[in-house]
Amino acid sequence: MSAIRIGIVGFGKIARDQHLPALNDNPAYELVAVASPSRVPDSLPHYTSMTAMLDAVPEMDAVALCVPPAVRYGLASEALARGCHVLLEKPPGATLAEVGELERQARVADRTLFASWHSRHAPAVAPAREWLKSRRIIGVDIEWKEDVCVWHPGQDWIWEPGGMGVFDPGINALSIATAILDEPFFFREGVLAVPDNRQAPIAADLGFASAAGYPVNAAFDFRQQGPQIWDIHIETDGGKLTLSKGGSQLLVDGELQLEAPEQEYPGLYQRFAELIGRGEHDVDASPLRHVADAFLLGRRVIVDPFHWQRD
Amino acid sequence: MSAIRIGIVGFGKIARDQHLPALNDNPAYELVAVASPSRVPDSLPHYTSMTAMLDAVPEMDAVALCVPPAVRYGLASEALARGCHVLLEKPPGATLAEVGELERQARVADRTLFASWHSRHAPAVAPAREWLKSRRIIGVDIEWKEDVCVWHPGQDWIWEPGGMGVFDPGINALSIATAILDEPFFFREGVLAVPDNRQAPIAADLGFASAAGYPVNAAFDFRQQGPQIWDIHIETDGGKLTLSKGGSQLLVDGELQLEAPEQEYPGLYQRFAELIGRGEHDVDASPLRHVADAFLLGRRVIVDPFHWQRD
Repeated sequence: MSAIRIGIVGFGKIARDQHLPALNDNPAYELVAVASPSRVPDSLPHYTSMTAMLDAVPEMDAVALCVPPAVRYGLASEALARGCHVLLEKPPGATLAEVGELERQARVADRTLFASWHSRHAPAVAPAREWLKSRRIIGVDIEWKEDVCVWHPGQDWIWEPGGMGVFDPGINALSIATAILDEPFFFREGVLAVPDNRQAPIAADLGFASAAGYPVNAAFDFRQQGPQIWDIHIETDGGKLTLSKGGSQLLVDGELQLEAPEQEYPGLYQRFAELIGRGEHDVDASPLRHVADAFLLGRRVIVDPFHWQRD
Repeated sequence: MSAIRIGIVGFGKIARDQHLPALNDNPAYELVAVASPSRVPDSLPHYTSMTAMLDAVPEMDAVALCVPPAVRYGLASEALARGCHVLLEKPPGATLAEVGELERQARVADRTLFASWHSRHAPAVAPAREWLKSRRIIGVDIEWKEDVCVWHPGQDWIWEPGGMGVFDPGINALSIATAILDEPFFFREGVLAVPDNRQAPIAADLGFASAAGYPVNAAFDFRQQGPQIWDIHIETDGGKLTLSKGGSQLLVDGELQLEAPEQEYPGLYQRFAELIGRGEHDVDASPLRHVADAFLLGRRVIVDPFHWQRD
């Protein structure tokens, strides 16, 4: 099979740091061009818009959309209509309605649409799923606690409507949980803590229940000082599994079983190539759906105002 | 075809006022029993739970779930597993995740699942859809304004998380809009006005855009004094269509074309019987999805506290 001719659309930090090296290292792809209103490395053919890029390179097979969620729908719709396979960064859209419609359009166009969730490609995720298959789950505890001032310094958009606040990292945890748990779970009740001067939650305490009835609890917090925590603990009849450090470590009953360097984007692009090869889709909106359910059903409490400058 | 043996589950106001007479008047159904912890008319076999009802009447073909959204998933799941067709009152669940899973379970069980939206069976809805088919839409304006003190007196649940506030009636407008517009539309931006002492919005000003780009604006308000308004205006290249009084009147350029008495639940049960007869599903969660999208993306503003007693 010849290489997939791909263009990157949107050339912000995630495109430069993750998409570009992952594509350059994968022989399944030929990175043909970049579309972005801003500057890109001189070594790459550059267009100021996706439309201009597809006009100039009509033989493009695929695009990776690394633009903000608010403009993702229009670009994805155009790319599918022009015969391209489409990879969506997370979250796959600003709204669930858009994602549902894109899935329909991809089927009509007979192109691969991949709503990617990079955390699902962390090294311990697949082994965790495998380990859980032969155990009965008793309960799940998700702890996703990081300092917003360290990881999102000055990014005011994260506090705006659609920015999702602490759910911006929290959705990564939900993307892992929905990937490793065999049965669906549903939001039941919870609290969203919203700073007095902001729109989006700075912390959330969420109670889900699985279809079989076991609890899935999640604590997200943007105010974490000291050690940063991205852990999922799963109590089973055969011991306690812990996915730690965002899915790069797997522990059973506290004993380290696996640790591997972060390889999320290479795995993500491997999956995209496989989907294209098989003519399949992967449009799992369930992490975003859980966030929307939490916004719909969660109780809001107002907490202290948030300011970037701390004294 | 023999009559569909059906049981009503939950016997609150909507079951007594709407479901019971609609079933009694429709020869396609035989109303066999009612399951409810509260009292029901002596003329009907009565069980205190759905489980007890299905144990006692194993030949039941279908159930209509008129219970609150929070308990709908568990009951629907059980009824499908026991071989019953299931009708869900609106909204079809407390969360979108549940509705998605119920749809999967219905396919596995090969039973009809009908996520009903009673407003879609208002008399002018189908004629409006037909009229629109040959016109190009320019814009849509939804006005859904009622006095919560008249229509939901003392119902504190409506202000709680999950009660949805003004979206409780507003979702009826969205269920009509999604039924009569041929193309999907997406939430873009809007404002949710939330009373200082409540969790759910008392008013909402919502901006959607259709896939083709025309605007769909919606103004919901629970503070309406004087005339109550449940109108949808659709500007087209062939005149302006107005669905008025919740879908019971159809006007074109202000001229009344059609007016008919409210017949929503008879139409709803006719549709359920047709779906069962054809072995089909109708699980359109799009009205609830639009509400979740608006909660996810809408800007919240705090407004005056709301109290039931007005001076």
